[in-house]
Amino acid sequence: MNSTDTTAPAGDARRGRRASGGADARRAARIGGHQTQLTYIKRNIPLYEVLSEEGLTLIEANAERVLEEIGIDFRDDAEALSMWTDAGADVKGERVHFPKGLVRGLIKTAPRQFTQHARNPARSVEVGGNNTVYAPVYGPPFIRNLDDGRRYATIEDFRNFVKLAYTAPSIHHSGGTVCEPVDIPVAKRHLDMVYSHIRYSDKPFMGSVTAPERARDSVTMAKMVFGDDFVDQNCVLINLINANSPLVFDGTMLGALKVYARAGQATVISPFILSGAMSAVTVVGTLTQILAEASAGMAFAQLCRPGAPVVFGTFASSISMQSGAPTFGTPEPAHVLFGAAQLARRLGVPFRSGGSLCGSKLPDAQAAHESANTLWPTLLAGVNFCLHAAGWLEGGLASGYEKFIIDADQLSMFQRMSQGIDYSENGQALDAIREVGPGSHFLGCAHTQANFENAFWRSIVADNNSFEQWRDDGSKDAAIRANAIWKRQLQDYVAPDLDPGIDEALQAFIANRKAVLPDGVS
Amino acid sequence: MNSTDTTAPAGDARRGRRASGGADARRAARIGGHQTQLTYIKRNIPLYEVLSEEGLTLIEANAERVLEEIGIDFRDDAEALSMWTDAGADVKGERVHFPKGLVRGLIKTAPRQFTQHARNPARSVEVGGNNTVYAPVYGPPFIRNLDDGRRYATIEDFRNFVKLAYTAPSIHHSGGTVCEPVDIPVAKRHLDMVYSHIRYSDKPFMGSVTAPERARDSVTMAKMVFGDDFVDQNCVLINLINANSPLVFDGTMLGALKVYARAGQATVISPFILSGAMSAVTVVGTLTQILAEASAGMAFAQLCRPGAPVVFGTFASSISMQSGAPTFGTPEPAHVLFGAAQLARRLGVPFRSGGSLCGSKLPDAQAAHESANTLWPTLLAGVNFCLHAAGWLEGGLASGYEKFIIDADQLSMFQRMSQGIDYSENGQALDAIREVGPGSHFLGCAHTQANFENAFWRSIVADNNSFEQWRDDGSKDAAIRANAIWKRQLQDYVAPDLDPGIDEALQAFIANRKAVLPDGVS
Repeated sequence: MNSTDTTAPAGDARRGRRASGGADARRAARIGGHQTQLTYIKRNIPLYEVLSEEGLTLIEANAERVLEEIGIDFRDDAEALSMWTDAGADVKGERVHFPKGLVRGLIKTAPRQFTQHARNPARSVEVGGNNTVYAPVYGPPFIRNLDDGRRYATIEDFRNFVKLAYTAPSIHHSGGTVCEPVDIPVAKRHLDMVYSHIRYSDKPFMGSVTAPERARDSVTMAKMVFGDDFVDQNCVLINLINANSPLVFDGTMLGALKVYARAGQATVISPFILSGAMSAVTVVGTLTQILAEASAGMAFAQLCRPGAPVVFGTFASSISMQSGAPTFGTPEPAHVLFGAAQLARRLGVPFRSGGSLCGSKLPDAQAAHESANTLWPTLLAGVNFCLHAAGWLEGGLASGYEKFIIDADQLSMFQRMSQGIDYSENGQALDAIREVGPGSHFLGCAHTQANFENAFWRSIVADNNSFEQWRDDGSKDAAIRANAIWKRQLQDYVAPDLDPGIDEALQAFIANRKAVLPDGVS
Repeated sequence: MNSTDTTAPAGDARRGRRASGGADARRAARIGGHQTQLTYIKRNIPLYEVLSEEGLTLIEANAERVLEEIGIDFRDDAEALSMWTDAGADVKGERVHFPKGLVRGLIKTAPRQFTQHARNPARSVEVGGNNTVYAPVYGPPFIRNLDDGRRYATIEDFRNFVKLAYTAPSIHHSGGTVCEPVDIPVAKRHLDMVYSHIRYSDKPFMGSVTAPERARDSVTMAKMVFGDDFVDQNCVLINLINANSPLVFDGTMLGALKVYARAGQATVISPFILSGAMSAVTVVGTLTQILAEASAGMAFAQLCRPGAPVVFGTFASSISMQSGAPTFGTPEPAHVLFGAAQLARRLGVPFRSGGSLCGSKLPDAQAAHESANTLWPTLLAGVNFCLHAAGWLEGGLASGYEKFIIDADQLSMFQRMSQGIDYSENGQALDAIREVGPGSHFLGCAHTQANFENAFWRSIVADNNSFEQWRDDGSKDAAIRANAIWKRQLQDYVAPDLDPGIDEALQAFIANRKAVLPDGVS
């Protein structure tokens, strides 16, 4: 593997041309009026809450019992154990028992909301409060599209998904491992991934968590873009720390957590739960465990650096009790999602969950229903940071090109839905009702003419033509139309400007690191 | 067209055999344990409400202004106009202006909730309150399936959809015009449709509204099944009366409305709205008009017979402002649905809306997303009667066989979701968390073993197998799997018992009516 993986593509030469100005306008025009970049969602509709006050109190009390009586393992990290001893926990071997209230008390130093800065300030996002940030799928080793079917992902796919997320107005974040570039050695991969996010997008992004030194590389590269002092005082990386459920944090994740928290960067502490395997088969039991695990992880981040931004994470689905296979889009995980969001609000920290999760191998009706059954709770529960918002297929094993386009279209639908109700005089439209009167139509009335351009959300994927026109257009399904859309978006893609000095410094850093890192597969 | 359309199929002979008992058990076994018939939804999770108290008051005040200042046309029905004059309205020509409070006052005699009786009492449904009743698609002249593509519907298709709705555990109602049997003359069609609902299902069903005499035939046939007195004192038919929006009720619909209301049968008063054409392009403007129209229709039903069951109906979607085509699954109609449900609750009447609406021609990802974007609001808004819950394709032009199966599967998901949270000791699962402890798994623990059978909802459509197994099974998408399911369900279908005397009487009535009705196309 050589360093050409990190070389900016031939299009680099474009920078000079685009520096002359007008690129943004041209890009906007090319993408089309309804594809104007949207800022993160500032929700203006009510939340939906499924747990009662009594239910919440019960779960919180049970989680305290789990923390105190059962405890959580912090494995392969002696420093973490000693930090917990110093904080007043009861440590026996690698098992940490937390006196009642200790964990909740520590979390009080965590911010209720924080800004993750993007290198383009217009793309910075607010994580917490009434806000929702959509980020792409994270982690799949495979990709699927209509042209290639399913195959291992490469760095080229990785760049493509970064470009597609950059293009999609409703995807507010560049994400992290949008797919695993398996054509690059594991120990070097993170460098190319972080570089791609910086080079091909100007939206905020995620750092590597697969080893503490990869987390350190991520912070170093972020500092080259944002400056050392800025990074020390601001969040520019958000990072996914999974609990090893049930009730374990392992050394790898703890190592990455410590690097990021001490650098003042955000950590998403996410129990990864398939109920029936990593948690009990009930909603309340699963929520109890999630609250215990996420709280312990967030408290530990506060031990590393009080005030470090943390996010209460929840990845929860179920397994088929018949086959053991993970299932998605089912009702029980939706209840867990709604409930965990309530628990996070009561803790006073931002919440991560949701996404376009599905078990389907294809971007078919199964994929869409399952995705919708998680995306609806994502919006209505008040998820603040939504990983896997677009592109997830096959239980997270494949990043789908067409799926990405279909999901992103739905995200823009949800963003519009989040905007609430217009009660203004124009919204009331009494004059229009009066003008039209009984038995006529509103197509040409003054009110319709004044509002038609932005009255309704528009899908870029849906075909609403007549049957005959649709048939004459080739009887295409949504996946076939999405195939044409991602190809056009990649073709039309223009990279955002990046200071050439920063770019060169990043590439030099990467080359130096690659020279000393192994080429092995782990 | 001859009367064989209404002849019970060869399977009639089975009745003797099945009368010996055990048929229910055999049928249940054949359909599978998770296919046990479900009663209607008794929602045990909170509602989602999008309109504020101030917003609701504003819309109600504006609707009163529309009723008083603009008025509503009651066309081609002199009796209706004279009834409104007697009730204190200001009638000018066919335009009725309603003094403030008149309409709301009249609606007070309508029941908040009522039972629609099925010929099998176990299938009777409660319409109103915390209940949701799912009924099939209504109205399409075409059908689509993977075998035939798209073609005109026949009475055979009609029977098939009745049978599929009878088989689906999560479809609580047999519906009405599940497709238009265009192979039967228009003037005779209603007889075959009502007969099919009675003969091939034991779930509640709908009457004809396309002419007053067809409504009368529907009532007559219902009386042959339920008895004259029972029908006079109980609701056994629910019937769809569309307003001719904006602000018009036409003579056909008024004629049917009068027949049903006077017979004590339920009418669903439904503005049929495509915003931008039949209403203003705004949510609040559309809700104002819907409230005015639905209220006026429900009040008129109370003039016909105080206490007659009525349902506040809302069919609302939008049009593409670019092409004029109807669109579905968009955010604005979801807001209208949530808002109209709130307005209905404040009026104290049951609410009808929602469904598996979509513009897609195929049961693809577009169809699924659009359907989900209406089915989610259907549950969370607290819709009481949901027409079009399964089978809708192509803006209502086609009833889809595969779509029906995929939708029905989702309905069972929503039914499970509606059941709320189990806070019992078993739900809390603290013993399970203690038994398993950190770093193990829940697959074999006692709690999982005790709960695994019913812990999680199970899809009959989704494929959750590994990629390799799915590929070896033929790489089928959801539509292909659904195709096999509906064929198996039709093959396994066994008709419910029907008293032979009633059956003969119905067939004689139909033959007599057909002998005098014309064979024309209108």
